[in-house]
Parts: sequence; structure tokens; C-alpha cells
Amino acid sequence: MNSLNLGRHISGQFNEDLERVLNLVMQMGGLVEKQLSDALTAVVESDQEMAKAVLSNDYQINALEVNIDDECTRIIAKRQPAAGDLRLIMAIVKTIADLERIGDEAEKIARVALEDFSSRQKDLLTNLDNLGRRVLEFLQLSLDAFARMDVETAIKIHSSDEKIDREYEALMRQLMTYMMEDPRSIPQIMSVIWSARALERIGDRSQNICEYVIYFVKGKVVRHMTLEDMKNL
Amino acid sequence: MNSLNLGRHISGQFNEDLERVLNLVMQMGGLVEKQLSDALTAVVESDQEMAKAVLSNDYQINALEVNIDDECTRIIAKRQPAAGDLRLIMAIVKTIADLERIGDEAEKIARVALEDFSSRQKDLLTNLDNLGRRVLEFLQLSLDAFARMDVETAIKIHSSDEKIDREYEALMRQLMTYMMEDPRSIPQIMSVIWSARALERIGDRSQNICEYVIYFVKGKVVRHMTLEDMKNL
Repeated sequence: MNSLNLGRHISGQFNEDLERVLNLVMQMGGLVEKQLSDALTAVVESDQEMAKAVLSNDYQINALEVNIDDECTRIIAKRQPAAGDLRLIMAIVKTIADLERIGDEAEKIARVALEDFSSRQKDLLTNLDNLGRRVLEFLQLSLDAFARMDVETAIKIHSSDEKIDREYEALMRQLMTYMMEDPRSIPQIMSVIWSARALERIGDRSQNICEYVIYFVKGKVVRHMTLEDMKNL
Repeated sequence: MNSLNLGRHISGQFNEDLERVLNLVMQMGGLVEKQLSDALTAVVESDQEMAKAVLSNDYQINALEVNIDDECTRIIAKRQPAAGDLRLIMAIVKTIADLERIGDEAEKIARVALEDFSSRQKDLLTNLDNLGRRVLEFLQLSLDAFARMDVETAIKIHSSDEKIDREYEALMRQLMTYMMEDPRSIPQIMSVIWSARALERIGDRSQNICEYVIYFVKGKVVRHMTLEDMKNL
């Protein structure tokens, strides 16, 4: 946590509470990143042990969410923060909700590693992994922007979600073509499709995290704004 | 808004602020219900005009979310509510985030009405509509439980999501079989599949709303609890 950037926003006892909570958020973010990375590795390497580890580790993320959410409510009630500080707490509450759901999506992806694929189908898993690595990087950049409350980076990353969407669309077309050519493969391909969709959602949720950074720093909800509007905030 | 049930939780000026916000939440909930209902009607009746109306009305839901979110932050900063009152505000903030996303899912469903389907495929749309009507009812019950902060009903509805999941699974199997039998139909069927998935997600988000009611009344996060644990709270 780079406290320099936050220094102008916070003060005193509230500062200490906040640093503790932000450390927990970063710990949660690190866990979620690892879950996603492990899920992708499990799928592309058909590593069932690793997939099972992802499934059994999800509870840690859930526990952190409950813990951080409680802490945030406690801090608001006890410290009665003013507008800017309060926005930061609200941004944290929303961020951890998205992180928890990203953990759930990683779990869904890991389940694909438990299925059987033919060697030709494994090429599709490699393409899924490529999309996944790009989404993972997007998540990492979003969490970095969050850790530093870096609004310029948040706006820049936010708009790069379009690239992921295009890559997702391309993979989806490939998967549909594959199903049309070999209808017997539909059940397996559908599970790859669900994973691709899960990755697209992780991209959306990472984008949400960027929006919370902008909301905290600028005091504006940008969810329904164009990129131009965002830049002019 | 049944203020009897809330009477014991709130007081004074905070009470007035809260009633205003809760009215906005119910207004937002009503809009979201209507969007979902209209999207389903548009799909089953291939009513393109109605579908376009759903797409163009989504901004109202987005505007309400931003408005209510701002109001909630303002109320916390101004009234500095104590634990129970604060939990209610947090429950509202989370509920409107889910409602906004339900609106987005309704929009996705409406887009299906803009596609062409053969008469045989239209049977699948009827099945989609059946699932949709059940999900809509589930959403309505969840919002009723929220309006009355009725924790018993919230727990009961929460567990009935399983029925929707079973109906969703049955529809999904039917759609996969259809694709395997007629691979040329895959692009159309995939759009029905995305709509079914959107409905399943609306069910999950309605379930979230029940969880916020339980969180407010019991002070416990039940997201990762079993039904038995919930009943013993």
C-alpha cells in the first residue's frame, strides 16, 4: 500500500483502521489473482489436483470478504468519516464484493480441468488460456490502480477492456464454428464457452474496480459515462 | 413501504431520509420488474418495438442507481447512523447494485427478440419465457421481502432458488440437444442459451437481495451459510 497517495485523504486513528483494511483488501486481491492463475494452469495442463486446490481454497476469499465488510461497517460507525473518507470505505465495500465474485468465476473455470478433452479440443483450451492470461493482467492492473488510488491509470485500464471483449468475441466465434463442425463435441465445448464467459465477466468486474477508484478520487459515478466524459471529469 | 416494521429500527430526521430513499429503491425495483417482464414478452411474441423500448428505458434504472447511491452516502455523512441503521443503508447500497445489473440482464434478453427464429425454435422461446416468469416472480418476492424487511420470508425465498436452478438445467439440456440435432441452428440457439443464463443470474441476484434483508435484520452475512445455519441464526 502506497500511503503517500492516500496521505492527503486520511488522518489520525481513521488512518490506522484504514491501512489495516486496505492491507486485507490487497491480501484478498492477491488470493483472487492466484486462484484465477491456478485455475487457468489447471485447465491448460489438465491438472486435476490443482483444480481441486482452487475449489477448496475459495472459502479463504469468502472469509476475507465477510471480515473486511464487517470492518468497514465498524469503521463507519466508530469513526463517522467525512465525505471523502466515506467514499473510500464505500469503494472498498464494493471492490471486495467484485473480488469475491471473481473468486467464484475462477472456481467455475477450474471445474473445466476435471473434464476430458480430445487432443484437438486442447487447442481451444490454449486459446482460452491466452484470453485468461490477458484478463488476469487486466485484473492485476486494476488492483494496482486501486492500491495506489491512481485515477489516470484507472481510466486508461478501464477503456482497455474493449480489447478483451474483442478477443472474447473471436474465441466465441471459433468455439461456435467448432460445435457446428463436430456436434458431438457440443457438451465439452459448452464448458469451454462457460469458462470464456466467466473470463469476460472477470474483465467486467475488474473494470468495476477501476470505476470505484475514479468514484473515490473524483466523487463521480462513471459507470454509465463515455471515455470522453471520464477524461473531462 | 410498510413503515411499521421499520419503526423499531429508525428514528427522527434519519427516518424521513430513509423513507425517501426506500421509496426510490421500490421505484427502481418496479422499473426493473417491468423491464424484465417486457423483455420476456418481447421475446415470446417477437415484438421488436417492445424490445427496443426495453433497450431505450435502461438509462432510467442507471440514473436511479446513481441517485440512490449518492443519497445513501449523503445520509451516512450527515446523520452518522448507528450500527443497525447503518446496516440498512449498506443493504440498500448493495441491493441497488444488484437491481442495476438485473436491468442489464433484461436488456440482454430483449436483444433476442430482434433475431429471427423458425417456428420450431419458437417452442424453445416459450420454455425460456416459462423460466423467465418464474424468475420474475422470484424477483418480485425478494423485493417484497426487502420492502417489509421480512427475514422469515427472505430465508424461505432464498432457498427456493434451487427450483429455478433445476428448471434452468432442464432448459439447458434441451437447448444442447437441439443444437446437436440441428447444428445449423447453433447461432440462434446460443442466443437463447445466453438469455437462459441471464435469467439464472437474475435469480442469483434476487437471492442476493434476500441475503441483504437477512444481513440487516440479523446482522450476519449469510452468503456462505447453509439453509440450516440460516434458520438457526
